[in-house]
Amino acid sequence: MDDPDKPRFHMSPEAFRRHGREVVDWIADYMERVAELPVSAQVAPGEVMARLPKHAPERGEPFEAMLRDLDQVVVPGLMHWQHPSFFGYFPCNTSGPSILGDLLASGLGVQGMLWQTSPACTEVETRVLDWLVDAMGLPVAFKSDAGGGGVIQDSASSAALCALLAARERVTGGAGNSRGLSAAGGDGGPVEVVAYTSSHAHSSLAKAAMIAGLGRDRMRAVEVDERFAMRPQALARAIEGDLAAGRIPAFVCATVGTTSSHAIDPVPAIAEICRAHGLWLHIDAAAAGPAAMCPEYRWIHDGVEHADSYCFNPHKWMFTNFDCDCFYVRDRAALVAALGILPEYLRNQATESGQVFDYRDWQVPLGRRFRALKLWFVLRWYGLEGLRAHLARHIALARWFADQVRADERFVLIGEPPLNLVCFRHVAGDEASERVLAEVNDTGRVFLSHTRLDGRYVLRMSIGGTFTEAEHVEAAWALLSAAARG
Amino acid sequence: MDDPDKPRFHMSPEAFRRHGREVVDWIADYMERVAELPVSAQVAPGEVMARLPKHAPERGEPFEAMLRDLDQVVVPGLMHWQHPSFFGYFPCNTSGPSILGDLLASGLGVQGMLWQTSPACTEVETRVLDWLVDAMGLPVAFKSDAGGGGVIQDSASSAALCALLAARERVTGGAGNSRGLSAAGGDGGPVEVVAYTSSHAHSSLAKAAMIAGLGRDRMRAVEVDERFAMRPQALARAIEGDLAAGRIPAFVCATVGTTSSHAIDPVPAIAEICRAHGLWLHIDAAAAGPAAMCPEYRWIHDGVEHADSYCFNPHKWMFTNFDCDCFYVRDRAALVAALGILPEYLRNQATESGQVFDYRDWQVPLGRRFRALKLWFVLRWYGLEGLRAHLARHIALARWFADQVRADERFVLIGEPPLNLVCFRHVAGDEASERVLAEVNDTGRVFLSHTRLDGRYVLRMSIGGTFTEAEHVEAAWALLSAAARG
Repeated sequence: MDDPDKPRFHMSPEAFRRHGREVVDWIADYMERVAELPVSAQVAPGEVMARLPKHAPERGEPFEAMLRDLDQVVVPGLMHWQHPSFFGYFPCNTSGPSILGDLLASGLGVQGMLWQTSPACTEVETRVLDWLVDAMGLPVAFKSDAGGGGVIQDSASSAALCALLAARERVTGGAGNSRGLSAAGGDGGPVEVVAYTSSHAHSSLAKAAMIAGLGRDRMRAVEVDERFAMRPQALARAIEGDLAAGRIPAFVCATVGTTSSHAIDPVPAIAEICRAHGLWLHIDAAAAGPAAMCPEYRWIHDGVEHADSYCFNPHKWMFTNFDCDCFYVRDRAALVAALGILPEYLRNQATESGQVFDYRDWQVPLGRRFRALKLWFVLRWYGLEGLRAHLARHIALARWFADQVRADERFVLIGEPPLNLVCFRHVAGDEASERVLAEVNDTGRVFLSHTRLDGRYVLRMSIGGTFTEAEHVEAAWALLSAAARG
Repeated sequence: MDDPDKPRFHMSPEAFRRHGREVVDWIADYMERVAELPVSAQVAPGEVMARLPKHAPERGEPFEAMLRDLDQVVVPGLMHWQHPSFFGYFPCNTSGPSILGDLLASGLGVQGMLWQTSPACTEVETRVLDWLVDAMGLPVAFKSDAGGGGVIQDSASSAALCALLAARERVTGGAGNSRGLSAAGGDGGPVEVVAYTSSHAHSSLAKAAMIAGLGRDRMRAVEVDERFAMRPQALARAIEGDLAAGRIPAFVCATVGTTSSHAIDPVPAIAEICRAHGLWLHIDAAAAGPAAMCPEYRWIHDGVEHADSYCFNPHKWMFTNFDCDCFYVRDRAALVAALGILPEYLRNQATESGQVFDYRDWQVPLGRRFRALKLWFVLRWYGLEGLRAHLARHIALARWFADQVRADERFVLIGEPPLNLVCFRHVAGDEASERVLAEVNDTGRVFLSHTRLDGRYVLRMSIGGTFTEAEHVEAAWALLSAAARG
């Protein structure tokens, strides 16, 4: 710190104060002007890289140089997920309290891998995740004072992987972990663990089966009904087929709000099948879960009381910036049995007392950032009533949008949107749908993404931006309507 | 945004500006006062939770309430990893430019899962990781314009898992992914994939083998020499034994700077064995890697030119806040073959052109934060000469500390510290060593952690704090010396 504001030396607290204000102002300005930027990036592959030097600077640069390049090089190369007319993929909505909670996590720079390495990092997380059990009507068995508990994962992908591993180890009695799947049988032979989800489940389920060594084929893609929800009878048949073939069914993932269309699997019926066969039931409510905060949408959680694990993403639709997935288990011992490992250099009294959670044993990586701060700040800033109001507002906007689509003969509405995602296509077929999407996205004034449903190219209108108002949804509809022609 | 500064409504840009400054000031104040706080938390299990309400607030709270609880509830419950007298585990050092780069990532709130979803998020990352190849003397094959490439992972644990999966799929020809390890053989039978690392490797290697379905036993813990480095002959024997038993060796992880003692495995000899048997060689340089920036410590990378993959953690010892692990592969196609998956809702022209990196296929989760910003800011603020100067300063402090230990007959220095970690014990044995550690840590003025080497309880003095100066190391030595007594 020889020279407090010169690069090469550490940035002094005083310099941090000054540059920190510049960055806060930059973000506030960005919030104010993002609506005027083109939603999608206007760059070709390699264009951003070509504007960056080929080598790291030998000498430090002033902070101003970074902010300049942020404006000139980075911003034109971004898709603006916080643009009020961003309707692609999923909302990924952030908010002031979240950004500032996350900033504090960066500034504190603590590690929450063990309780011991920062008790508050663990205990704030445990408490806030307990709060959400009550706020969303999740089973009390998920709470930390029961046998369960919640933990923040980076994503629903990782949550699904952890749940699958817990199920794999429960069914192999830990032999998957010790001897591996090729030798986990009672006789030292292979064990063919099988898992199930619907053909509309998120791709992370197949990926989890690949990573966990089950194989992608062993994550059975169970048939869906006309609303793209899992058919319980097809699930039952698949399980029985695998049992008859000597395989070991272990895990079912039901989806509450699929990625493509927000389809909601019939959890009560699925849960009954899981119970009959002793299978681990995981619920992936990554995108739709937050709606359960609202009493009028609490029904999406019907049957969740039977789940062994559950997750939803505040970083999708609860004003909390990425990464923040809330993952719950009914039996935390099963999770820790699958993921726990204790080397000497991490031994400590608190761990040995058994009185604390060491969250490193609840996840894939060892290190942990203080992610609970941002979630805590969001819950406190908005309060439950605030969150409910914003969620209900998004759903109302989606209903208005669905009404326009339904009333327009040039478009076909796909099902009734249960929440904040509207799926529709052009009546003239895939080519017309693709053309409409490309045309509206090319204006830069809006961004939607697509999927395929029943083999047809479908546009997805996902409404959940923090600063998305009726005017933005109306403008999007006007663009789509103009592009539809005919 | 009906009322711009009232909770329940969204925090307006104006309110964000004001509260953002409060938070920046809070962090600057924290930087200035952290040296006066007790390094370790002063709380018992459950104490922090007991100070938090049992239920989420129904109504939003003012931002001031959160900052108040941060001071009153959170800070006393933290271990202060940024305290200049924090010498535990690993440095985890952060810095102003990193915190502000990370703040911008939160504020922009973009997703880098696909190139398409924010091209700059991908291309800044690719470029900055290319920079580091040159800056650290890594093989040019790791660069994006060769067949390789770098990607930011959350941690070295995840990097090791991804490397192991790539190796598993290379050796099974993709059948591990498709049919699972219990049926990946040519005949549809099991394949017993085996991996190797030293008995001093990080626990994440065993965990990766558990997750990947190989089984913990199949991550062979190869014997180490008197300096705790892997014995290449023992590795060769283990491989030959597994081959003779019909198993399929696939992967070796060599460590450059083990967690316990910074031991450096003999990579050239290990690489030769890997080449002879066609095994994937991964190098885990999580903690020690940054030292290779300095020409005088570049030797730690001897043999890395033969590696298939490599990782090091800027979030450990390069002033970049968690999470930031830099992971490189020689053959990016092998990594993508192991982790790639493309559902319809993510299809896009750029991906299909083959001209872009979609980093979701280089990692376990799907979502990605713009983590490259903080690393880019750190490299630009310090410049390579600045980083080298700070790393060399930490190593010089460690040498001074080792000199004190060596000269003091009450302590035994364990080996010569190659870099910034000094291991030592009390000459009177484990009980005395444990007592010394507990006594100095209980003062709250310093924190060290421990390990076991050759069965003996050993203190670890890890020197790498951003604001750690000679005075802090001297004070730690004075405390240790006083606690040693006799």
